[in-house]
Amino acid sequence: MVERKKWSENFSEWFNEVIEEAGILDKRYPVKGMNVWLPYGLKIMKNIEKFIHEEMERTGHQEVLFPALIPETEFQKEAEHIAGFEGEVFWVTHAGHEPLDVRLVLRPTSETAMYSMFALWIRSHADLPFKVYQIVNVYRYETKHTRPLIRVREISRFFEAHTAHVDFEDAERQIREDLDIFDNLMKKLAIAYVISKRPEWDKFPGAYYSLGAEVVMPDGRTLQIGTMHNYKQNFAKAYNILYEKEDGTHDYVHQTTFGMSERLLAAVIAIHGDDRGMVLPPTIAPIQVVIVPIPKKGSEEEVYSYAKEIEEELKLAGIRVHLDLRDKRPGWKFYDWELKGVPVRIEVGPRDATEKTVVLARRDKLEKITVSREELVDKIRELFDDIMKYLYERAKEWLESHIKRVDTIEEAKELFNDRRGIVEIPWCGEEECGLRMEEELEAKMLGIPYPDESAKVEGKKCPVCGREAKFIARFARTY
Amino acid sequence: MVERKKWSENFSEWFNEVIEEAGILDKRYPVKGMNVWLPYGLKIMKNIEKFIHEEMERTGHQEVLFPALIPETEFQKEAEHIAGFEGEVFWVTHAGHEPLDVRLVLRPTSETAMYSMFALWIRSHADLPFKVYQIVNVYRYETKHTRPLIRVREISRFFEAHTAHVDFEDAERQIREDLDIFDNLMKKLAIAYVISKRPEWDKFPGAYYSLGAEVVMPDGRTLQIGTMHNYKQNFAKAYNILYEKEDGTHDYVHQTTFGMSERLLAAVIAIHGDDRGMVLPPTIAPIQVVIVPIPKKGSEEEVYSYAKEIEEELKLAGIRVHLDLRDKRPGWKFYDWELKGVPVRIEVGPRDATEKTVVLARRDKLEKITVSREELVDKIRELFDDIMKYLYERAKEWLESHIKRVDTIEEAKELFNDRRGIVEIPWCGEEECGLRMEEELEAKMLGIPYPDESAKVEGKKCPVCGREAKFIARFARTY
Repeated sequence: MVERKKWSENFSEWFNEVIEEAGILDKRYPVKGMNVWLPYGLKIMKNIEKFIHEEMERTGHQEVLFPALIPETEFQKEAEHIAGFEGEVFWVTHAGHEPLDVRLVLRPTSETAMYSMFALWIRSHADLPFKVYQIVNVYRYETKHTRPLIRVREISRFFEAHTAHVDFEDAERQIREDLDIFDNLMKKLAIAYVISKRPEWDKFPGAYYSLGAEVVMPDGRTLQIGTMHNYKQNFAKAYNILYEKEDGTHDYVHQTTFGMSERLLAAVIAIHGDDRGMVLPPTIAPIQVVIVPIPKKGSEEEVYSYAKEIEEELKLAGIRVHLDLRDKRPGWKFYDWELKGVPVRIEVGPRDATEKTVVLARRDKLEKITVSREELVDKIRELFDDIMKYLYERAKEWLESHIKRVDTIEEAKELFNDRRGIVEIPWCGEEECGLRMEEELEAKMLGIPYPDESAKVEGKKCPVCGREAKFIARFARTY
Repeated sequence: MVERKKWSENFSEWFNEVIEEAGILDKRYPVKGMNVWLPYGLKIMKNIEKFIHEEMERTGHQEVLFPALIPETEFQKEAEHIAGFEGEVFWVTHAGHEPLDVRLVLRPTSETAMYSMFALWIRSHADLPFKVYQIVNVYRYETKHTRPLIRVREISRFFEAHTAHVDFEDAERQIREDLDIFDNLMKKLAIAYVISKRPEWDKFPGAYYSLGAEVVMPDGRTLQIGTMHNYKQNFAKAYNILYEKEDGTHDYVHQTTFGMSERLLAAVIAIHGDDRGMVLPPTIAPIQVVIVPIPKKGSEEEVYSYAKEIEEELKLAGIRVHLDLRDKRPGWKFYDWELKGVPVRIEVGPRDATEKTVVLARRDKLEKITVSREELVDKIRELFDDIMKYLYERAKEWLESHIKRVDTIEEAKELFNDRRGIVEIPWCGEEECGLRMEEELEAKMLGIPYPDESAKVEGKKCPVCGREAKFIARFARTY
């Protein structure tokens, strides 16, 4: 088992080092909060996105691509939305040497870019449900401390699905589909998460309600990695998105959105990591198996040709394999591939070449087994499954052990002083009491458990006002 | 054979209609020169990009992703480059409610974003050649008439490869590799093109020399669809990109770039189209085969189940197939899929279901054949090959018949009044004479044939100054 000491005790430093040393991003780009994606990091992210594209295809979402610039006039149509975003958008005001007639916003999200087009495209109930998505760069002028992948001014890989429906019920069905898509994706990433319905004061600007998916990071803070919003007809009214019903009358569509980003990669790196670096789920590892030859003097040719045979065999089996022929010592290579999180390492020495065996080392537990050449492919596939299971179980255990239910503010405070994570407290449902708890705990209310929002809290009292609690409210220190 | 009357005589209108009706782009987005990519158009473009990614992988280029915003201070380091671009960039000057300390340029291309990072990454000759690429959105404040895919203010799918080398020779080798990559890609798109070395006055800003690849569009104007530039050490000196040589001394790297964009899709649509709409090469068609059932009363079940069997069979064979079950008449469907350029249409009626045959209609020639069920997959594959061949041959013939060599300005003028295309004229090599010809012909000099730039022009005279001609210069009205 690999230690997770630095990982949990000094997570920020651990995370920054891994990002840099494993070749995920370069943070030295000369604009604050904007980073350069390096080849290895981009490959992992694109493998994650492959699953997103597959899920979108499965559920009948069509991929589109909208411009990144939004005219100020369009941007300002939905009042709550503009109020929520105007403090944090970048403005394009000039082109060439001249000021623009209409200033342009660099999209912070695409509602205001898309919805005047939706009004042109959607005509009748036959066009509904209408489901599109895109993966694009968006911009937010974050004033908080920026962190690569987690809080950035350029979100390079922003996924946003936008849908329109005949009525509230069908929009609710869409939210359930989003949750299903999200769950499938999390299984591919071996990530355990919770869904909360955000409190009124923390909804997406313009939404009727917002759901958020959170993971608990190694330092006990939570990271939001997915959101689903039901807009009801709020935007449809602002952008005049009407459809003709079967009876010939007209109504505004109901809309939803679903968002994710490179925070998915941040979660993968953080949740599965350890003191040696990343541990990538085989599902998304750019290199699933690395072969490190360990020749002895005189056996070089034999070992390298055996290693190449194995490489060929794995390639044919559809496994993403890499044979490391760099002029470095095996120990240096082990260290490097462990840092980069390659799920399985194959070591081949002279004895393996003679006896037709290989040594398999799994990255998660760092255990080694020796297998025969004939059973190699099967054993690797088994290992992949085992690794996925182990990573998911460990992630689930981590999450569950970091959710605690308490009755009083004092108990909650103690938990935040100690191990943190998510603290659940009975709540009367009043904004005043919720905000008061946020203040006292120096934490944010994530919201109430979803979809069990009405789960009864028998005989519990709101610790602020003493009235009967209607909900369980989740609090956390958040990223 | 399908007519190409509107296609050639009223190309602009034809092109705009096809873009709109086939579902490529929506031009109604409320910012001039910025368009919305619709699902079908985006799918074709992504299929084109699949081949680009494959070629990049084959040649050892690594994919990266840089921020879209460049600080003014970085943007201004290479004098010629800034002079060439400063009149056409968008400026981000404010964030939230405040002016920025350093204004940001929305990248018009990424040299000035990338090269300060290259200076950090490249240390020694062992790091060279260094080859990266990205496909991103870039911005140019075009003052000329904008046209979807062809001249836009947001280039949504800008491909740019950037390389660094130990010396000029290795950079030249890279340019040859780029030409090879480009040629492979053009074969996949069935496009015939010419390469010209641009005159000094039309080089990329900051380049030592520039190559451009052109096609001749249906109206006889040329479209640049690819460029390769050798920068020598121009940018390396401005951005201080030094490497240590084997002998321990230091030198600036030599650099090249290679660029393409959604103009590739414009070329595919234009070059292969006809009066019925698009004709897509099977290599990139999102739907390669569409099945249109033609049931008669009483035979519906039989025909639909036969059509579904065929759909399954083609899917299993790895063919991108779509079964059109819309509640429309077959004739309406034919028209729709012809417009969208689906390479092969399968018609199945009651008789086909009984006799186990199908009718195949190829989009390019609109010829039909009847084949038996058993030979279906083979015949479709043959048809794909035939279509690729036919499209390429027709494109080549179109190109070659639109390149004419003349000796005098008068002959050139006549050609531009008539069929246009590319006119080749002997040239002494002096800028003055070149510019004079551009003016007289109201055309641009594309440059001299590459790589045969030194092809002797025995005994020919420059029609402007009367001195001996050193080159053949190509002129065209350009997009």
